[in-house]
Amino acid sequence: MSERTDVLIGRKPVMNYVLACITLFHGGASEVNVKARGRAISRAVDVVEVCRRRFLPDVKVRNVDIGTEQLAPFEEGGSPTNVSTIEITIAK
Amino acid sequence: MSERTDVLIGRKPVMNYVLACITLFHGGASEVNVKARGRAISRAVDVVEVCRRRFLPDVKVRNVDIGTEQLAPFEEGGSPTNVSTIEITIAK
Repeated sequence: MSERTDVLIGRKPVMNYVLACITLFHGGASEVNVKARGRAISRAVDVVEVCRRRFLPDVKVRNVDIGTEQLAPFEEGGSPTNVSTIEITIAK
Repeated sequence: MSERTDVLIGRKPVMNYVLACITLFHGGASEVNVKARGRAISRAVDVVEVCRRRFLPDVKVRNVDIGTEQLAPFEEGGSPTNVSTIEITIAK
C-alpha cells in the first residue's frame, strides 16, 4: 500500500469518510490527504475533526492548503466556473 | 485601528465579506483573520480565494487552523453539539 493516500470528500455522510481514513491508517498509511471542493469543504473539516478527536488521537493536522480550481463550462460557449478547494493533510 | 482584525463569516453573500476584508486592509490592517463555523466554512474559503485572486493579489494565506467548538445544548438536559471551525489568516 502507498504511504501517502487521498480521501476525496463528496456528499456521503461524514462517518463514511472517517471510516475510510481509519482504514487507511490501519492499513499502514502514514499520511492521509483529505480533499474537497465547494460545499463539501466544511464536511472535510468535520471528517478530520471527528477522526482526530474521537478515533485517532495520535493523528495530527500537518498542513491545510486552500485553493481555486477552474471547471470547464457547463455548455459550449459558457464561461468557466471557479470552485474553492481544500486539502488537509493528517499524519501519525 | 488595530493591526490584527477578525471577519466572522455568516450567511450573507460572499462579496459582503470580501468587501469587509478589503476595507480592513485599506484601513491599515496588516493581517485579517477570516473565521467561520459549520456550513459557513466553505464560504470562508471562497472569501479568501476571491480576495487574493481578484482584488488583493499581494495578500497571502499565512495560516489555516481547523478545530472544534462545543456549543451549549439547545434545551435543558440536551447534549452539547460539536461544530467544526476554521480560521484563515491572510496578510499583506
